[in-house]
Amino acid sequence: MATSTKNTAPLRVGLLGLGTVGQGVLRVLAQNGDEIERRLGRRIVVSHIAMRDPSAKRDCDLSGVTICATAAEVVAADVDVIAELIGGMQPAQNLVLDAIARGKPVITANKALIAEHGNEIFAAAQAKNVFVGFEAAVAGGIPIIKAVREGLSANRIDSLAGIINGTSNYILTQMSRRGIAFAEALAEAQKLGYAEADPTFDVEGIDAAHKLNILASLAFGTPLRFSAVATEGISQVLPQDIQLAQELGYRIKSLGIAKHASANGEDTVELRVHPTLVPVDHLLAKTDGALNAIRVHGNAVGQTVFVGKGAGGDATASAVIADLIDAARWLAAPAQAVPYLGFGSSALKEARALAFAEIESAYYLRLKVADEPGVLRAITSILADLDISVEAILQKEPGENEDATLAIITSQIPESRCNRALEKLSELTFVRAGWSRLRVEHFED
Amino acid sequence: MATSTKNTAPLRVGLLGLGTVGQGVLRVLAQNGDEIERRLGRRIVVSHIAMRDPSAKRDCDLSGVTICATAAEVVAADVDVIAELIGGMQPAQNLVLDAIARGKPVITANKALIAEHGNEIFAAAQAKNVFVGFEAAVAGGIPIIKAVREGLSANRIDSLAGIINGTSNYILTQMSRRGIAFAEALAEAQKLGYAEADPTFDVEGIDAAHKLNILASLAFGTPLRFSAVATEGISQVLPQDIQLAQELGYRIKSLGIAKHASANGEDTVELRVHPTLVPVDHLLAKTDGALNAIRVHGNAVGQTVFVGKGAGGDATASAVIADLIDAARWLAAPAQAVPYLGFGSSALKEARALAFAEIESAYYLRLKVADEPGVLRAITSILADLDISVEAILQKEPGENEDATLAIITSQIPESRCNRALEKLSELTFVRAGWSRLRVEHFED
Repeated sequence: MATSTKNTAPLRVGLLGLGTVGQGVLRVLAQNGDEIERRLGRRIVVSHIAMRDPSAKRDCDLSGVTICATAAEVVAADVDVIAELIGGMQPAQNLVLDAIARGKPVITANKALIAEHGNEIFAAAQAKNVFVGFEAAVAGGIPIIKAVREGLSANRIDSLAGIINGTSNYILTQMSRRGIAFAEALAEAQKLGYAEADPTFDVEGIDAAHKLNILASLAFGTPLRFSAVATEGISQVLPQDIQLAQELGYRIKSLGIAKHASANGEDTVELRVHPTLVPVDHLLAKTDGALNAIRVHGNAVGQTVFVGKGAGGDATASAVIADLIDAARWLAAPAQAVPYLGFGSSALKEARALAFAEIESAYYLRLKVADEPGVLRAITSILADLDISVEAILQKEPGENEDATLAIITSQIPESRCNRALEKLSELTFVRAGWSRLRVEHFED
Repeated sequence: MATSTKNTAPLRVGLLGLGTVGQGVLRVLAQNGDEIERRLGRRIVVSHIAMRDPSAKRDCDLSGVTICATAAEVVAADVDVIAELIGGMQPAQNLVLDAIARGKPVITANKALIAEHGNEIFAAAQAKNVFVGFEAAVAGGIPIIKAVREGLSANRIDSLAGIINGTSNYILTQMSRRGIAFAEALAEAQKLGYAEADPTFDVEGIDAAHKLNILASLAFGTPLRFSAVATEGISQVLPQDIQLAQELGYRIKSLGIAKHASANGEDTVELRVHPTLVPVDHLLAKTDGALNAIRVHGNAVGQTVFVGKGAGGDATASAVIADLIDAARWLAAPAQAVPYLGFGSSALKEARALAFAEIESAYYLRLKVADEPGVLRAITSILADLDISVEAILQKEPGENEDATLAIITSQIPESRCNRALEKLSELTFVRAGWSRLRVEHFED
């Protein structure tokens, strides 16, 4: 507003890495440069880049950009901001810390780095009073970090739950729509480029756990602690489970779930990623394909849901550039910074993360049982003895000489009790091997 | 971050008005005061209040608050920030301008004031370099203003469309679920307190037009111009239309729609509020009851959708307090302000707003026609002669000696051509009086 003091020279960005996101940044800056200048009052230009393979074919214009031999050279160059788009731990971590040490604002799209080393990075940045932006680290097309950190800052955030891994959601959507098995859907996703050759990070929930860890810290004001996330992948979900869940009124989605509770003077958090039965009419159940959706429940706003693309060069670039704009504003007046995690660093509070065995949830149980009289009575007796209510039950008529399939939705119970029930049920002679247990999540408005 | 220079004294807020939102602000500050202090590094306290009726029963704690006889006294008092929660034009407008003249940051939940006098207010604030926050003016429970202004700042925003009036959405949801008529649903909404005794503002789209005008300026960087919004209310929607639309795969929602186009060197915007047929599987079609949902399409992120409560004391208070937190940060370093409308004031560009007659859309037409041979041929001939494709058509079998009802979804055509078609169709002797025309919106990902 005080235009007289405004810096109108272009903001010079040093880009580390020129993969999908880096190319997106150049493309979006080229396409929307004028619009961005209307917003910021100055242009944003990528002035220096380091890339792994300078000879690779790329979908962006590099004219006027200084190509450096190493990323370290870019960090040391005469640039205003560093954007780290390499990914992985090293050398990304040292480059980010080097930029901070030089007092240069850093933008990163690196969820693994922030989730696993964010505490250290933010401490270094705080000591030097340097801006660090990571909007691109979670659900690139959804400005969810700003929404939780600033938009909902008046709330005590009770919980959040989201579809934050597009690959898993794409696979589950295909399994659900076409009744195909996990392996087939995964192979297709790999062929289409939605899944990596080694899909472990995505389908085993590790990528989602990184993002959930970041969101939870922003929501609850807890330090980052990736190792606290309890994780179950989607590879064990069968088409049969998807079908039974549907008949019971649910869709199966891989959710990242974070809940905060204070009880008996102890702050605890649940941080978990697992396939989850979601009521069919909830927005999360309707978020299909490669989309991301995040539900945030605050004690003042109630339920809010944010939906958009989770990945892709241009969508992630949108988040990187939004951070560049924030960084440019911050450079004009560094005293007014929003804390990295939304809470002042000295205000961050540890909260013990619960293991799966400590949580409470409703459960979906699928059992294969002999088609005999008394089976249902024996099963429901075990559940009743453990004080587990059956909220819904579905038995499909078996074929001649076949076992029957039984699906049960339980009431909200401690997972330890659910485990005891499964032990006892497994001991029944007419319950066959190969049961399945999935968690069920209900959402209030 | 530079903690040494930080102001840790409480932020003193002067509240103008103590209605639903004002009480919500006090309640949420009382409930979440510690959490907010963890975020901001200082407490927020309401120190002065002016209210219309001090004897009214209220659901909040006023202990320690100085009750002023007039709002002007609060503006003049020793407070850091003014929150205008009176609503309406005067005295709200003069109070806001007075606060600005005194260099005090202003937060307002007043969509009518911003939509109709925002240009003048922002010009005054810019001249004095004063913060103005209005997140609460649109969809209180959704931080949509920050999302469009900052979160999506890297995008050229092409269009936005939203359910931004909870009353209309509640009425249409009830009509749709229970087949009841507009008048009955309205009466119920009034009884439940969802609609005012005089419901004109809500059901005729004026409230939505105020909000749309604000969102469009944030999205496109155009000055505010409320009078440019083309508006049609929901009172003409019949249960029959809802039913036919459903059979054709659509839900009828009252949408605020803003589109931006540059063609032949002219920047134009469409700003319109009207009942709209939305494909049944789109998130907007699934947003029911008093919820708000806003779809924003940016050229980098593609489609994003934001869902949450549109009204209510605590949800709107959440937006007011988020602005108070931003105002407190701004007070610490006023040079770094985000422009009021996201774009620098000198970068705002006029764009001509199109009248309904100038837009293009797909249309839903409902005609009552005699049950005679040749009727369909005559109707489809008129449409074909005007180069209007029929995308879908539905004729319900009429009862004995009854007229038939015909529903048609057209291709995307200029509205002027749709009007010509309706004129020509009305001239046909077997087309009865009382046709209906609604606009249809399709959304790309």
